[in-house]
Amino acid sequence: MAAISSLSLKTPTKIQSLTKTHYAIPLNLPFSCRSKSKRTGSIGSRTRIRCGLLIEPDGGKLVELFVEESQRELKREDALKLPKIKLTKIDLEWVHVLSEGWASPLKGFMREDEFLQTLHFNSIRLEDGSVVNMSVPIVLAIDDSQKNLIGGSSSVALVDDENNPIAILSDIEIYKHNKEERIARTWGTTAPGLPYVDEAITHSGNWLIGGDLKVIDPVKYNDGLDRFRLSPAELRDEFTRRNADAVFAFQLRNPVHNGHALLMTDTRRRLLEMGYKNPVLLLHPLGGYTKADDVPLHWRMKQHEKVLEDGVLDPETTVVSIFPSPMHYAGPTEVQWHAKARINAGANFYIVGRDPAGMSHPLEKRDLYDADHGKKVLSMAPGLERLNILPFRVAAYDKTKNGMAFFDPSRPQDFIFISGTKMRTLAKTKESPPDGFMCPGGWKVLVEYYDSLDQAENGGVSETVPA
Amino acid sequence: MAAISSLSLKTPTKIQSLTKTHYAIPLNLPFSCRSKSKRTGSIGSRTRIRCGLLIEPDGGKLVELFVEESQRELKREDALKLPKIKLTKIDLEWVHVLSEGWASPLKGFMREDEFLQTLHFNSIRLEDGSVVNMSVPIVLAIDDSQKNLIGGSSSVALVDDENNPIAILSDIEIYKHNKEERIARTWGTTAPGLPYVDEAITHSGNWLIGGDLKVIDPVKYNDGLDRFRLSPAELRDEFTRRNADAVFAFQLRNPVHNGHALLMTDTRRRLLEMGYKNPVLLLHPLGGYTKADDVPLHWRMKQHEKVLEDGVLDPETTVVSIFPSPMHYAGPTEVQWHAKARINAGANFYIVGRDPAGMSHPLEKRDLYDADHGKKVLSMAPGLERLNILPFRVAAYDKTKNGMAFFDPSRPQDFIFISGTKMRTLAKTKESPPDGFMCPGGWKVLVEYYDSLDQAENGGVSETVPA
Repeated sequence: MAAISSLSLKTPTKIQSLTKTHYAIPLNLPFSCRSKSKRTGSIGSRTRIRCGLLIEPDGGKLVELFVEESQRELKREDALKLPKIKLTKIDLEWVHVLSEGWASPLKGFMREDEFLQTLHFNSIRLEDGSVVNMSVPIVLAIDDSQKNLIGGSSSVALVDDENNPIAILSDIEIYKHNKEERIARTWGTTAPGLPYVDEAITHSGNWLIGGDLKVIDPVKYNDGLDRFRLSPAELRDEFTRRNADAVFAFQLRNPVHNGHALLMTDTRRRLLEMGYKNPVLLLHPLGGYTKADDVPLHWRMKQHEKVLEDGVLDPETTVVSIFPSPMHYAGPTEVQWHAKARINAGANFYIVGRDPAGMSHPLEKRDLYDADHGKKVLSMAPGLERLNILPFRVAAYDKTKNGMAFFDPSRPQDFIFISGTKMRTLAKTKESPPDGFMCPGGWKVLVEYYDSLDQAENGGVSETVPA
Repeated sequence: MAAISSLSLKTPTKIQSLTKTHYAIPLNLPFSCRSKSKRTGSIGSRTRIRCGLLIEPDGGKLVELFVEESQRELKREDALKLPKIKLTKIDLEWVHVLSEGWASPLKGFMREDEFLQTLHFNSIRLEDGSVVNMSVPIVLAIDDSQKNLIGGSSSVALVDDENNPIAILSDIEIYKHNKEERIARTWGTTAPGLPYVDEAITHSGNWLIGGDLKVIDPVKYNDGLDRFRLSPAELRDEFTRRNADAVFAFQLRNPVHNGHALLMTDTRRRLLEMGYKNPVLLLHPLGGYTKADDVPLHWRMKQHEKVLEDGVLDPETTVVSIFPSPMHYAGPTEVQWHAKARINAGANFYIVGRDPAGMSHPLEKRDLYDADHGKKVLSMAPGLERLNILPFRVAAYDKTKNGMAFFDPSRPQDFIFISGTKMRTLAKTKESPPDGFMCPGGWKVLVEYYDSLDQAENGGVSETVPA
């Protein structure tokens, strides 16, 4: 922790303007570890990934849950004979998350013992006595009629809207879904209006079904963004290819402004000072379910692209990829999940901001969580001891520099704080933020997004997706 | 766990009638460890208790928080100069609990880092990296005016109703009391009507104050029962004096019937079979706050006394003592606290029943917790790995034996289940339970208790306390 403290206490340097502009997505690179593991792995086997100097996955192994390619047809036929559970959009996102090993060492949707440990301890004890972090329940709900349909079968097929089999869940266990308790222990409130609860829990079934998951075909969304959805194994390969000796992850679900960029650039500088030779940034926007007033993934990706094009971040030392998890907005509980999943992707440093995964209280005029609890809970969380937590330093608009800078409490009058709400209001009303708040290309994307919303409200296109 | 499984799977033997009738309270025995530690301990020191073969306290040391006797007057005078916090009845019970080391290694009311770990992880990581269980927040609430009164002082005096100083809290930390979050994460619900919440949280202050506690005089209630309130150190001494090589704890807050007695006797028999030479039972009724419809402590103690007098339990191998904690009724969360505190008192086996620390949902027609979750959560809880969990076997009235016996699923028609509610109803209406359900002396106490309630309702004495 000494290193972390010094990292957040030292004075900042000014952000450097960088000129390279291409997106740092290694799409055409050989993914030796991934390709190899997927080709040679048999059903039920786990693949041990050890790429260079990277942090080990939780449980020592990255658990990928794909049916071996040669077995896919066979499994598809098997699936057709099994009782079927139709997946919602969010269920499918969790299938995606589980299948790629973000939740390693989980082998499928949680059984009751994993669910209870998650709710009560935010962690799971493994057979060898070691503990891994697991703070958010990854569960599949079914209703009475589905439960009856399953009867005594020990396996079920998970199918999409059109009854295409996506995966098989075997050695199943069905147990009660106490929604109230799940919500209270995950969110620390049961107030109506929690987005994930409204979307995925309130109307879900009264039972949960856990078991071992095997995904027949890797989940794809065919939305033009699949190429940005690198799995943990692919990310590990990429970090290894770049000879990264430190990987620092930045989770985001908002447009990147120059304050973020300052933080990320400064973090790299400090890691270099600590003696690392090649720290690589994982800029990792969340790609699953988000609430209605968040900027949609497509627009955010377009905005991030512009930020890289404008040279605000160095593509040589930045990997931009999509984190496929849905968003809970569960503050200190969820930030642990965000951090833990990045360990599995090879990150050994995690940048945590003010009020991570937080939101306003649905009923009261206050934030749902204390803004400092996220980083405090994260720094004490069981199973995350190996991860270096980097607390976010507050950046604000410095009027004396006409740009974003770390806040200097000795001269508060020089700084303007531009909140997410303020930023959105400016973009909606087509006002410009102060020069240097965000690169012009990135800002333009935001304005376009809110424009498209206006058009939709006025009877135009419902949601224009940027190319 | 193999030993435990065999313990709960083997067939039961019939309970033996025992003839010794005295209460197993070792009041006049030399408590060498305790006396020594209290006399030689300086302020701020912790006393390491190692009595024979007993399980080590959490954190390796039993943390007693008493001011050294020679320093009491001095500290009392110091306290009079400090800002004063008036303790409620439940606050005082927690001061008692903390001072005797039931919550070892806690050194006082929780600071925020301990509070957050308790809420999120049900456990606390110590400086050496080891983990102790801690599932229930032990916190002290203050309101705005008290916070203002404290100002910049680093210590406060904790005083009783009449402003007598009870303890000093030093190196204090004041932080926000988010009641909704505390309740949701502790109880898994925020439904109105939770007894402890109504009694101790809803109307408490919006701040929590943590710090190092030093109690000036050991807490006494002067209710005729103080002699039954043995501290963890005293219990350890007693177990050592008896040459116990296993201590099995039974937490209760209800009258003891012959089903309980069967279980306890049978547990001892099985521990002997496992090779222990002298297993001792800690029969440990909870003595702090309980909800209005529970049988009050005085009546329960009288009932327990009759049960021992009637020879249902062997006083030679039974220690009856009062556990001073208040009751949360927080099910799987609270049962961990009940178990952890008994480790500190020297117990290495803990008997856990169906729906421990459970109650009805305050609003819905169901139990608040799944009846099996308590023992499941307990068996997986961080920091309790050293404790052997003994799941309660279901006992019921066996009509073929005219007595309580372990339920035999092959002949369900022979058994009658008599719930706590049923038992209370019978006692209230002065009906007799079946012969052999409870020893006659114990039943008589129960009937007397409900009689006294009737008298109170009809304008008689409000609560007759048995001698």
